Amino acid sequence: MRILLSNDDGYFAPGLAALAEALSGLAQITVVAPERDRSGASNSLTLDRPLILRQASTGFYYVNGTPTDCVHLAVTGMLDHLPDMVISGINHGANMGDDTIYSGTVAAATEGFLLGVPAIAVSLAGGHHGHFATAARVVKEMVERYQREPFAQPTLLNVNVPDVPYESLQGSAITRLGKRHKAEPVVKEQNPRGQTVYWVGAAGGAQDAGPGTDFEAVTRNVVSITPLQIDLTHFAQMDSIKNWLTS
Amino acid sequence: MRILLSNDDGYFAPGLAALAEALSGLAQITVVAPERDRSGASNSLTLDRPLILRQASTGFYYVNGTPTDCVHLAVTGMLDHLPDMVISGINHGANMGDDTIYSGTVAAATEGFLLGVPAIAVSLAGGHHGHFATAARVVKEMVERYQREPFAQPTLLNVNVPDVPYESLQGSAITRLGKRHKAEPVVKEQNPRGQTVYWVGAAGGAQDAGPGTDFEAVTRNVVSITPLQIDLTHFAQMDSIKNWLTS
Amino acid sequence: MRILLSNDDGYFAPGLAALAEALSGLAQITVVAPERDRSGASNSLTLDRPLILRQASTGFYYVNGTPTDCVHLAVTGMLDHLPDMVISGINHGANMGDDTIYSGTVAAATEGFLLGVPAIAVSLAGGHHGHFATAARVVKEMVERYQREPFAQPTLLNVNVPDVPYESLQGSAITRLGKRHKAEPVVKEQNPRGQTVYWVGAAGGAQDAGPGTDFEAVTRNVVSITPLQIDLTHFAQMDSIKNWLTS
Amino acid sequence: MRILLSNDDGYFAPGLAALAEALSGLAQITVVAPERDRSGASNSLTLDRPLILRQASTGFYYVNGTPTDCVHLAVTGMLDHLPDMVISGINHGANMGDDTIYSGTVAAATEGFLLGVPAIAVSLAGGHHGHFATAARVVKEMVERYQREPFAQPTLLNVNVPDVPYESLQGSAITRLGKRHKAEPVVKEQNPRGQTVYWVGAAGGAQDAGPGTDFEAVTRNVVSITPLQIDLTHFAQMDSIKNWLTS
Repeated sequence: MRILLSNDDGYFAPGLAALAEALSGLAQITVVAPERDRSGASNSLTLDRPLILRQASTGFYYVNGTPTDCVHLAVTGMLDHLPDMVISGINHGANMGDDTIYSGTVAAATEGFLLGVPAIAVSLAGGHHGHFATAARVVKEMVERYQREPFAQPTLLNVNVPDVPYESLQGSAITRLGKRHKAEPVVKEQNPRGQTVYWVGAAGGAQDAGPGTDFEAVTRNVVSITPLQIDLTHFAQMDSIKNWLTS
Repeated sequence: MRILLSNDDGYFAPGLAALAEALSGLAQITVVAPERDRSGASNSLTLDRPLILRQASTGFYYVNGTPTDCVHLAVTGMLDHLPDMVISGINHGANMGDDTIYSGTVAAATEGFLLGVPAIAVSLAGGHHGHFATAARVVKEMVERYQREPFAQPTLLNVNVPDVPYESLQGSAITRLGKRHKAEPVVKEQNPRGQTVYWVGAAGGAQDAGPGTDFEAVTRNVVSITPLQIDLTHFAQMDSIKNWLTS
Repeated sequence: MRILLSNDDGYFAPGLAALAEALSGLAQITVVAPERDRSGASNSLTLDRPLILRQASTGFYYVNGTPTDCVHLAVTGMLDHLPDMVISGINHGANMGDDTIYSGTVAAATEGFLLGVPAIAVSLAGGHHGHFATAARVVKEMVERYQREPFAQPTLLNVNVPDVPYESLQGSAITRLGKRHKAEPVVKEQNPRGQTVYWVGAAGGAQDAGPGTDFEAVTRNVVSITPLQIDLTHFAQMDSIKNWLTS
Repeated sequence: MRILLSNDDGYFAPGLAALAEALSGLAQITVVAPERDRSGASNSLTLDRPLILRQASTGFYYVNGTPTDCVHLAVTGMLDHLPDMVISGINHGANMGDDTIYSGTVAAATEGFLLGVPAIAVSLAGGHHGHFATAARVVKEMVERYQREPFAQPTLLNVNVPDVPYESLQGSAITRLGKRHKAEPVVKEQNPRGQTVYWVGAAGGAQDAGPGTDFEAVTRNVVSITPLQIDLTHFAQMDSIKNWLTS
């Protein structure tokens, strides 16, 4: 089995190292990740310049581009074989609810999925305690399961693992994405040159964190596994918009 | 009525100017757009540095950030009132099918929607002939309609207008997103310093362009209007993944 | 006569427009300037990606690169004829003393000089009052003088014009570069994500601003003209270093 | 003794590691280098965003900025004591003649010098054979010499070491900077999106490589040591420009 790993925190991130190590006995691993932290990169693609692929002393490859660029370049221009799976992470911090729209971690997995490869995005929810080993073990078990029984359909999973010791996990749950409150406002400052500058503020707190959501699962120390799709069509709204248009 | 305009082609783009001009009689217009071309930016947010807001001689504001940054900054830190609508575009080129995942044009509208504002992304499908006036008039009519009859629900529309004279349009259709074939492989080159570099290739051709899709509508010179949603949960796959996990 | 204009504040900067307007009657003007503010860019060259040249509605060209890139691209790849002069500016703010090491304005002129073209860097010292017209008129007079009497040698001039009405100028002086005190320390802050960040601080005040320096001239409302060279060899120190090495 | 190391190739570069290792027995070493390759950065300073300082698993610090930023931040905001020396390198490739204007390696040393610290820039001339150990040993010997006998004056040295085994070196020489021919023209290409793009071309060949120059020394397998100064005033030209101005 061949697995392509990527992330959005950069090729030097401890979460990526933990993932590579955990999977090294199960499959042939190739790592292609951004050369610097690209958190918040979403599915952005670099179109105005070419990408350069380099290899670090660890054997990991890195690219002067986004997470999506990394997977795109690896699959369509670097690897001799299509990988059997793309895994992105382990992100330092959760990617739940609306975060999935902005997340570079989810985006790297999405790019694999769009290129026809089963894909998993993995995030350490919380991240302050640094239990990357917990998340790595969860992913390892999912890959072992996949080796016994492949997915029946094209699959893209968003996995958030509570930041606790493995023994403290309370199982896994298939979840839907919750919803966040609106993001905090930008933070306005003066820089030392007297210019007004604006920092993007923090994500909003969980608004819909009810039963069945990723937010709720993680709160109970349960691993959250959300199957994702990429068709943004709002089918349920097609009729009402049609009525609106012809009213 | 207050309308916030943005785009991903940059504050100087002719499509944006055409849009601002067409709407100037209908509403109070504020333009906040990227300082340079950010096509392909998706929903990326700038987290590692603050943003600077400047105003051009045209009165348009521009930001050293992404389309999402622009709308985020305008709505949460600059405007005194929440706008009544966010409109992004007129993009130079279509945003249909899987393009919506990567598009900065769609992302700017999505950010408005996430912040609670009805939003429309508008693209000129084709773009070689430059009939921005056609697309501007289509948007103007939609805004006029909205002024007579607001949307009943939170709404995010992805509009693709054929690049033809207005008189050649064959009406409008509510569509679903089509699907593209896989993207073309990266293009490998040597740069003048002897390094191997890789350009991201072209988007794939339409794979699912059947009846009801945005691709199909535009082919018939019909304006394509797709309602979008942002919940990526693949509800239909939750049971099968649950079975897989517990098998 | 053909003149190439550039700057480091960006193609949209008022100082550049003032310069282009003042010279339009004297010579055929081509403007190639950075697409965004690149103050502090020094002589940096973009080596890891190619440059794109675009034209604004004003007729000015802009490049997604540094001031040095702009002049380099214009002279070696875009213009049909070698220009007769490269002029960079009018910078918003002085470039005196050690500033010349960091300045993108000076760098654009330097690149012209290195490519065999007489070159002038022009800065508005102060810049708060915005008397760009004063600086533009000073440059115009220099170009008129050059048309009557070309430089006898390859020439690179660094011109700083006091930010006062033209009538308040107290003539011109040929000056040497002064020296600044050490720069202010970096300014340490927390960003909204809790990370420590550091802003580069302000330039130091003038340390050597004695008679004959650029600092001193400008203080007296005198236009400062400093001939520059680009050989950094410290000839006066060669013997003492030789002694040190063989001691 | 405290030595601050930096470079322009990035904190992961083998030349930097070789330098750090060679000096580790002689002094307390701190490394602060760019997070990615910034070759060609010249003395550019980052003014439009703040810098972030991170530490790699090797203990080296890295900064999301230029070589000049790295030294500036380390000296004015991070280190508790002013370092006794700043050393930049070992660059992969020569920095001779006009290269010094564009070089980020030289710039990092220059920033140290401007902040009052003796500084050395070191480059491996050639670089294809990778004899970083040769250059590291040359620097080590210079530091040992400095420890016995400090420089008598503020000193900034530009050192180019031939890329040969240490035993093949033919001594050292104090040199002046040579001159290069004009750079090669930009290389014009079409990118896969059909846009014309321009790569900055190669540096010109040596034009003045006569006796006494850095170019000539290296050709004879002699270590080239050029003392640099940073006052760009062209004193010899002041009279002729004065005559020109008043003619």
